[in-house]
Amino acid sequence: MSVSKNVSSVSKLKDRLPPKEKFSEWYHELIQRAEIMDVRYPVKGLYVWFPFGCRIRREVYKILREIMDREHEEVYFPALIPETELGKESKHIKGFENEVYWVTHGGRAELDIRLALRPTSETAMYPMFKLWIRSHADLPLRVYQIVNTFRYETKHTRPLIRLREITSFKEAHTVHATFEEAEEQVRKAVNYYKEFYRRLAIPYIICKRPEWDKFPGAKYTIAFDTIMPDGKTLQIGTAHNLGDSFAKTFDITYEMPNGDHSFVYQTCYGISERCIAALISVHGDDFGLVLPFEVSPVQIAVIPVLYKGKEREVLDAARELGELLKTRYRVVVDESDERPGAKYYRWELKGAAIRVEIGPKEVEDGSAVVSFRDEKKKFTVSRDEVLNKIECWANEMRRRLYEKALNEMKNRIKFCKKLEDVKHWINQGVALVHLCNSEKCGMLIDEVGSLLGEVVDIPLDIESSGKCIICGKEGKLNAVARTY
Amino acid sequence: MSVSKNVSSVSKLKDRLPPKEKFSEWYHELIQRAEIMDVRYPVKGLYVWFPFGCRIRREVYKILREIMDREHEEVYFPALIPETELGKESKHIKGFENEVYWVTHGGRAELDIRLALRPTSETAMYPMFKLWIRSHADLPLRVYQIVNTFRYETKHTRPLIRLREITSFKEAHTVHATFEEAEEQVRKAVNYYKEFYRRLAIPYIICKRPEWDKFPGAKYTIAFDTIMPDGKTLQIGTAHNLGDSFAKTFDITYEMPNGDHSFVYQTCYGISERCIAALISVHGDDFGLVLPFEVSPVQIAVIPVLYKGKEREVLDAARELGELLKTRYRVVVDESDERPGAKYYRWELKGAAIRVEIGPKEVEDGSAVVSFRDEKKKFTVSRDEVLNKIECWANEMRRRLYEKALNEMKNRIKFCKKLEDVKHWINQGVALVHLCNSEKCGMLIDEVGSLLGEVVDIPLDIESSGKCIICGKEGKLNAVARTY
Repeated sequence: MSVSKNVSSVSKLKDRLPPKEKFSEWYHELIQRAEIMDVRYPVKGLYVWFPFGCRIRREVYKILREIMDREHEEVYFPALIPETELGKESKHIKGFENEVYWVTHGGRAELDIRLALRPTSETAMYPMFKLWIRSHADLPLRVYQIVNTFRYETKHTRPLIRLREITSFKEAHTVHATFEEAEEQVRKAVNYYKEFYRRLAIPYIICKRPEWDKFPGAKYTIAFDTIMPDGKTLQIGTAHNLGDSFAKTFDITYEMPNGDHSFVYQTCYGISERCIAALISVHGDDFGLVLPFEVSPVQIAVIPVLYKGKEREVLDAARELGELLKTRYRVVVDESDERPGAKYYRWELKGAAIRVEIGPKEVEDGSAVVSFRDEKKKFTVSRDEVLNKIECWANEMRRRLYEKALNEMKNRIKFCKKLEDVKHWINQGVALVHLCNSEKCGMLIDEVGSLLGEVVDIPLDIESSGKCIICGKEGKLNAVARTY
Repeated sequence: MSVSKNVSSVSKLKDRLPPKEKFSEWYHELIQRAEIMDVRYPVKGLYVWFPFGCRIRREVYKILREIMDREHEEVYFPALIPETELGKESKHIKGFENEVYWVTHGGRAELDIRLALRPTSETAMYPMFKLWIRSHADLPLRVYQIVNTFRYETKHTRPLIRLREITSFKEAHTVHATFEEAEEQVRKAVNYYKEFYRRLAIPYIICKRPEWDKFPGAKYTIAFDTIMPDGKTLQIGTAHNLGDSFAKTFDITYEMPNGDHSFVYQTCYGISERCIAALISVHGDDFGLVLPFEVSPVQIAVIPVLYKGKEREVLDAARELGELLKTRYRVVVDESDERPGAKYYRWELKGAAIRVEIGPKEVEDGSAVVSFRDEKKKFTVSRDEVLNKIECWANEMRRRLYEKALNEMKNRIKFCKKLEDVKHWINQGVALVHLCNSEKCGMLIDEVGSLLGEVVDIPLDIESSGKCIICGKEGKLNAVARTY
């Protein structure tokens, strides 16, 4: 595997990254320097995936695809949606009308009907679902696609987080005979997403979004958020129970075994490349990317430490080990003629999970010096053992990354009993409060910070009900935060 | 693997397909019935990939990706290109201005600069290449992406062949220090595409397009065409030597070892989902899809032939064999309670490469009845041998498919000495003629049929030079055809 040669021209390898404490600067610099995305494309909010970023994307979406393939079939629906279809579901179009890109001309001709660039695909898919579904035997239908979607963002844009072209939106859509089955599917979706984020070692909190923040047209929305290093939350996945509202709009019915016809019940759930923003932000450090072994484009960097007169032996040993490791893993043997320090620096920046050094001493005694990206310590092992230890090391590393991230997240979550505390705490993280079900109290807290909604799953042990922080009536545990 | 349940509702399985002789009807019906694409999306020229079609797409593009990954790195550039960039290369924009979709509005606001939906990505990529390339050490640069591209087609549209959204355009772009290196890269691209089409068992002819039909902005264009069952040719791949014309437009230079600066030389080459149109059309027959083993979503269909009182034994044996085969291949054990005939019919339609039947007799003697999708004959083998024979059968099948397709193609190619012959023959296939290099003679023959250009590679032994069919001067072998 060749290292993209434009590393040197794009980034100044000798300068240090800004410290991670200055999260916004750190993120922006790291995205460019580690060659995830090039931010210099001449349109605001549009970015270029560098080859290295593309490799991370490929590995991350391979996991997502593997999970989806278990019970969904992949489809592809057009990127262009006629205005007539997009406008059919009134709540839905209201939710998107300010951020839809419109295609109005083909060549020099004005189009008869304007075409929306899909912001999401309900209105592209559901007119077809009406044709696909006839009887109960056609249900459930479960499909997904991974596509580019578009939003005319007027707020501050940021690579992977707030974009005008979301390049890799995984959207799943399911159709069921009953509301209960749709509910069950939302639960399954939540479990799929839990597994996905566990594999990325990213901790999350799960909330049911308040009424005014649910997906336009949905009955309810379950959302995954993670906490970024600056304490703001990033929504990294959502699952929506659509009930039968889209079914009614698009007239999707099925024949029941008794011959009657009924509207179907639907769900949809999605994850965008924000999962990669979370991956980078949650695990990264002052030296660059830290990636779980499973998704690191360079899982193992083998560094020959060359000494005059011993070059050949060292290089041979490094290559031999490299070839062996390549039979199972993504490996680079860094034969460049830079100092070892420069090589360490590069592979730290790029998040190589495991570094293996071989110098003259190691050649002689058949050993190798191993270190992990997330730990400073080095240790020596027999070269014969390296291959068979990798999987174990990879698992241990994921466990460490998850534990570390989970602890950081826990430290950013605080249960607050007073509104004053909430106001202060949300500058640092997520405030948990008890909140009654009234819209009035919800709206009041939403003025203090964004109400993420009723907590469904959180890695802390806090009473799930208690007195509403606003009115004192019986309430449920809710989360409040500043959000991306 | 589940068979998409909407088979029955979408298609009427009991009706026969139109015969392949009526190619246009056959193609249209097959695309829908075999569930490749749904043609009922409410915008002309936009189609939906069914789950089954998506699986073919996945397998075909896996091959293409594998070939590209050998010396290219994957990237992703935005789908939206500002008008200012798209318009920079005058020949290029001229070639596309009548078929570009324009985004003019974001939400309710009119955009300051109109955005083109990429028809192809030169003008999205090359302003960035200018930033990526500094010195000779950054060269060569070789990248590719697989993306959706858009053309406002005003002609008759057709699924996979002429679309308004090309959903899977593989475009590679390379940058070199010299014109010769760019030429060498075009040769390599041609070899990559040869390998790709060999693996799909699709024969091709390769021509150098005439000046007036080359890629807008290119020095020259090499194109792959295959011959469809109606005798018209389908362009299924192109490779362009761009020289330094885009480099000059986008000011892409590099520093040479001696410190001087020079413009770079570029190539680009692409394949769209037309490769799947060719796959379907070249190999399919009156019964449906015929697919090479490597890309068939259902490589092996195991059919238990159930008899009263023997159901359990037969089913057990079929499942056992199915499980074994699934360890290496994509397998369906068709346990539906339909008659065997209906099952055969379905898996013929869907192009399952190998069919394995097990009935009571086979249960008893430990055998299985095997047949291949492209041959009528059945034969009996020991069940123990099936797994280990698959690879050999798959290779033989590809060879047969290729031989058959090649013979059909050869029968559709004829060397013509008179213009009158050309006029007649192009109703059936490709006419080969000797043609001088003058634009006048080229234009004259282009009135009779489309001039594909000078023949670079053709599976027939015909003199590569001879007297021009128009003027009688010394000429080269050229191909003329009706084209899609």
